[in-house]
Amino acid sequence: MTERFSFSITATDGAARTGSIQMLRGEIRTPAFMPVGTAATVKAMKPEAVRAIGADIILGNTYHLMLRPGAERMDRLGGLHDFMQWDRPILTDSGGYQVMSLSALTKKTEEGVAFRSHLDGSRHMLTPERSMEIQRLLGSDIVMAFDECTSFPATWEEAKASMERSMRWAQRSRDGFDSGGAHAARSALFGIQQGSMFRDLRQISSDALMAVGFDGYAVGGLAVGEGQETMFGVLDYAPAMLPADRPRYLMGVGKPDDIVGAVERGIDMFDCVLPTRSGRNGQAFTWDGPVNIRNAKYAEDRTPIDPDSPIGGWSRAYLHHLVKSGEMLGAMLMTEHNLWFYQQVMAGLRGAIAEGRLTAWADAFRRRYRGGK
Amino acid sequence: MTERFSFSITATDGAARTGSIQMLRGEIRTPAFMPVGTAATVKAMKPEAVRAIGADIILGNTYHLMLRPGAERMDRLGGLHDFMQWDRPILTDSGGYQVMSLSALTKKTEEGVAFRSHLDGSRHMLTPERSMEIQRLLGSDIVMAFDECTSFPATWEEAKASMERSMRWAQRSRDGFDSGGAHAARSALFGIQQGSMFRDLRQISSDALMAVGFDGYAVGGLAVGEGQETMFGVLDYAPAMLPADRPRYLMGVGKPDDIVGAVERGIDMFDCVLPTRSGRNGQAFTWDGPVNIRNAKYAEDRTPIDPDSPIGGWSRAYLHHLVKSGEMLGAMLMTEHNLWFYQQVMAGLRGAIAEGRLTAWADAFRRRYRGGK
Repeated sequence: MTERFSFSITATDGAARTGSIQMLRGEIRTPAFMPVGTAATVKAMKPEAVRAIGADIILGNTYHLMLRPGAERMDRLGGLHDFMQWDRPILTDSGGYQVMSLSALTKKTEEGVAFRSHLDGSRHMLTPERSMEIQRLLGSDIVMAFDECTSFPATWEEAKASMERSMRWAQRSRDGFDSGGAHAARSALFGIQQGSMFRDLRQISSDALMAVGFDGYAVGGLAVGEGQETMFGVLDYAPAMLPADRPRYLMGVGKPDDIVGAVERGIDMFDCVLPTRSGRNGQAFTWDGPVNIRNAKYAEDRTPIDPDSPIGGWSRAYLHHLVKSGEMLGAMLMTEHNLWFYQQVMAGLRGAIAEGRLTAWADAFRRRYRGGK
Repeated sequence: MTERFSFSITATDGAARTGSIQMLRGEIRTPAFMPVGTAATVKAMKPEAVRAIGADIILGNTYHLMLRPGAERMDRLGGLHDFMQWDRPILTDSGGYQVMSLSALTKKTEEGVAFRSHLDGSRHMLTPERSMEIQRLLGSDIVMAFDECTSFPATWEEAKASMERSMRWAQRSRDGFDSGGAHAARSALFGIQQGSMFRDLRQISSDALMAVGFDGYAVGGLAVGEGQETMFGVLDYAPAMLPADRPRYLMGVGKPDDIVGAVERGIDMFDCVLPTRSGRNGQAFTWDGPVNIRNAKYAEDRTPIDPDSPIGGWSRAYLHHLVKSGEMLGAMLMTEHNLWFYQQVMAGLRGAIAEGRLTAWADAFRRRYRGGK
């Protein structure tokens, strides 16, 4: 593993692909699910446990980390990997999405986004150049271009203007990343396709990104409230517009059945807070669908959530008790289970693609998952 | 390990002793510190991690467990050990202390204590007989007699009346425990000495307990606000009133230097919420004294809390970040460190007693701990 970044596809099945990304910090088996480690921690999980359930890569949030502990401070502390003791690849987002959703008094211009911290009201500015600098200071392995996540719904004219700005920012991100010296030589940069739900704009965006050239390509602007059917409608054409020999990343997705459908449509990488956040709220994902462990019917249920789960030694009754009691161990165990389940889904998808039986696997998954109690 | 309960002392040094308790579920090395697992969980710790840092036994709270999930329900679920997946010994308190400090509308009579749950207002009654029954239903290994923790301060007359009631309840606890059938044949019962800060009452209480006969004896009614000096004053005589060949347990103690001083005075067992609760609040215990990790001076401190700690891979800066950010992993790591540190103190005490150098060890401990930053 001495390459900065390479992607090899070992099998395809319809539009779906399986393979692996090789990076200096390790291999990422695809299709891959990346647990979200917002504030330099996958919430309620030690890094060794995140690895043990099968994660090859995690995601860090530039917006959160630039505010606390701060990018320059993180650099002085030796970077995000050393800080949190995760030595495998980390993908960082650009901060562009969260600055609009979380911060106050944002002011967006062609230059970038000025805002005040949601933590202490301090003033900050995110631009493509600053986003690249922050992700370099964090020591990110996969850097995301700074873009604008087009609001939903948007008219064609709004979506076009927003996408065009993102494409100008994509070039500035490329230039900023490339000026990063040693960091650029050991990390990768992904561009992000926009265009809302408009096929022609998605094509224009893809062409613009490919003209710049990136190591991988994200499908952006989805999972913003459009619903699964509309999202799958876009995924029926959008991934194919991107280079076949580069990884395709669907940002912020999603529910297990979203992921299965997106893999069938050619997506290789995912991230989502759902398994961790739902776990803390008492929802467990299972092959038979989601389980709300707070439900009184589990109070004396001695069966495990899943006997194969790393938390399979504990009963549903125990998880019910912990979550109802507000015990931290409840959040810890539910999070571990959910992240494990997501990795099991990814492993199932990879195996099915490798053996050319993805449609049968996915249909069986959906029947059981949606028919679940 | 086929004995229900045996205590062997392998070395003494002054009033201090080291040895081990053998029980059917495992060995308890003494002096022992028991992490508190209030609601069927040592907060923020998996049982395997509690064991890994060296705990031989944990404590469960009868009051909390009788209210949630409930004693009869716990019995139907297979008992506390199976419920929480801790297969080593568990000591349960009698509920007597917490019913007075946590519940509402308590009414105390010779029969016992009637009260309403602090969770849902439901009515309950704790008596010596019911406390024994609950601890049996939980599957406790070391059952504590139901007593009254004498308020502090108390007059001699108040302390005498309270202690005498506790001694009557001690006999009823003994009778209740002995009627427990199979459970009584594989668990142990400890009596609790009372008498507040009065030497003559402590002697009367000890004599009364020994007349009943118990597997071990607790020194009760201390760590109730009297201060370390007064507590040590009582411990200068109270442990010696109890049988030398039985374990002596100081309930609810304490800070590391409290424990060291109590071991020097002949105590064998301890429990306290301090390492777990303080850990969740950002206080780490170290050989150089307590560290408040929230302090701004740790924001860029790349040194670990202790390089030998199981969390020694992470920096103080990282712990500072997690605790300041309210991240669950902060509570998890700080708890693990503190419980490990307490077990290190106990191991240090055991080793020093075994080698006849306790005074030197304890003096060195105090110099460093109290001189710490």
